[in-house]
Amino acid sequence: MKQSFLCVGLDADIRKLPACLLQEEDPIFSFNKAIIDATAPYCVAYKPNLAFYESMGVRGWVAFEKTVAYLRQHYPDQFIIADAKRGDIGNTSAMYARTFFEETNLDAVTVAPYMGEDSVTPFLTYEGKWVVLLALTSNKGSHDFQLMADEQGERLFEKVLRKSQEWAGSDRMMYVVGATQGRAFEDIRRIVPDHFLLVPGVGAQGGSLEEVCRYGMNAQCGLLVNSSRAIIYADSTEDFARVAGEKAQEVQRQMAAELAARNLV
Amino acid sequence: MKQSFLCVGLDADIRKLPACLLQEEDPIFSFNKAIIDATAPYCVAYKPNLAFYESMGVRGWVAFEKTVAYLRQHYPDQFIIADAKRGDIGNTSAMYARTFFEETNLDAVTVAPYMGEDSVTPFLTYEGKWVVLLALTSNKGSHDFQLMADEQGERLFEKVLRKSQEWAGSDRMMYVVGATQGRAFEDIRRIVPDHFLLVPGVGAQGGSLEEVCRYGMNAQCGLLVNSSRAIIYADSTEDFARVAGEKAQEVQRQMAAELAARNLV
Repeated sequence: MKQSFLCVGLDADIRKLPACLLQEEDPIFSFNKAIIDATAPYCVAYKPNLAFYESMGVRGWVAFEKTVAYLRQHYPDQFIIADAKRGDIGNTSAMYARTFFEETNLDAVTVAPYMGEDSVTPFLTYEGKWVVLLALTSNKGSHDFQLMADEQGERLFEKVLRKSQEWAGSDRMMYVVGATQGRAFEDIRRIVPDHFLLVPGVGAQGGSLEEVCRYGMNAQCGLLVNSSRAIIYADSTEDFARVAGEKAQEVQRQMAAELAARNLV
Repeated sequence: MKQSFLCVGLDADIRKLPACLLQEEDPIFSFNKAIIDATAPYCVAYKPNLAFYESMGVRGWVAFEKTVAYLRQHYPDQFIIADAKRGDIGNTSAMYARTFFEETNLDAVTVAPYMGEDSVTPFLTYEGKWVVLLALTSNKGSHDFQLMADEQGERLFEKVLRKSQEWAGSDRMMYVVGATQGRAFEDIRRIVPDHFLLVPGVGAQGGSLEEVCRYGMNAQCGLLVNSSRAIIYADSTEDFARVAGEKAQEVQRQMAAELAARNLV
């Protein structure tokens, strides 16, 4: 029992890698491998962000596939989320589902809800796989449309939470809720008391773990809190992996304390 | 002057390719190349749909890059749209922009608006490149959230059209409006009279070109109408490219008639 609900975001940007890696044959994979080995004892999930791999074209896609294969082989208990924010008409979403659940064997994929039911359901046809649907995101622009309210006062992110429960239950669907959203977690928990929430935005984006736990945790924990930059880029010397491990351990200890305070360990 | 506003969607699905191509070294690229050579006289744009390439992993990404390079070399006047429906927090959207505007040199990318301003603006920092923002899509699920209305009666897709004009003008931004949306084009043209609209959904999805022109065309045409399956999979024998060319020509002739009827040629 790890006493952790930490997800480490693998946002490997070639322009930010420690200089010592740049001579490697596949710097991105070498970086990920070192980060994974150092942080795996403290986390329960990894979240490669597809944008960072695609931005390097074929080379990046190779590094992505190698990273997933490495995790599967050496850390089979880790949950792997493709952070891809996909969503398109049915036959196209089916192809994205094939990408992440067949071509690469991930556990979950983040999906954008704008296009509605038939853009999401093709991801739900895979036994044991999860959709992580965007609800209330961590960024400033989340206010532009997600907070729009209808005549009954229901906001867009609430409508997404409510309607999407018609498509799958808490065994197949999670929601993205930004760590920066504070007490909105209370509103969200009224609609989805039992679901897992994937919470980005702790660390570089300014969200507070303590606040997320206070307002977002349920009786089964129900949280996966992601940290990317604050862990993987904590150090840029040859020591980067050890420092990343320490940072992950620090977060894990805070998580253990939050779990203990609620008798969840 | 081609008298065309046709965009051909390159949704190459390995499971649907003519059998005669399956022995080729890169069947997807061979298919695209033949389709492009046959249809280029009748269209002004191509729209590779990323899902279809990603679903084949590295092989698919290679085929995507080769397709773009082939278009650039042989048909430099064709406008190339990455149909990717991306959109994420600022630093991640910046990586997607790098993917489509630097790593591969496309002209435009489709973007999903759910995450708001800072998820879209990183795509707008590239001179001469375009964002094609989802407004009112062609699928059934478009009704789930896009038609939600606020207290003043403004619907989500209208809010997207209105707000996004603060981020860029009609020289950098287009909108996706499904061909299946009929008279909603009139509402849309009231908000964005001058913008180009990228219109999918003619053909396999049941939209009508004549209706799209009646309600959506402006004084500069202002439309890019996409057809994918109805052209590229019109025939599955060795004759597939010739038949695709004929289908494209058929659509182009209808377009020429629509343009002529409005004195736009």
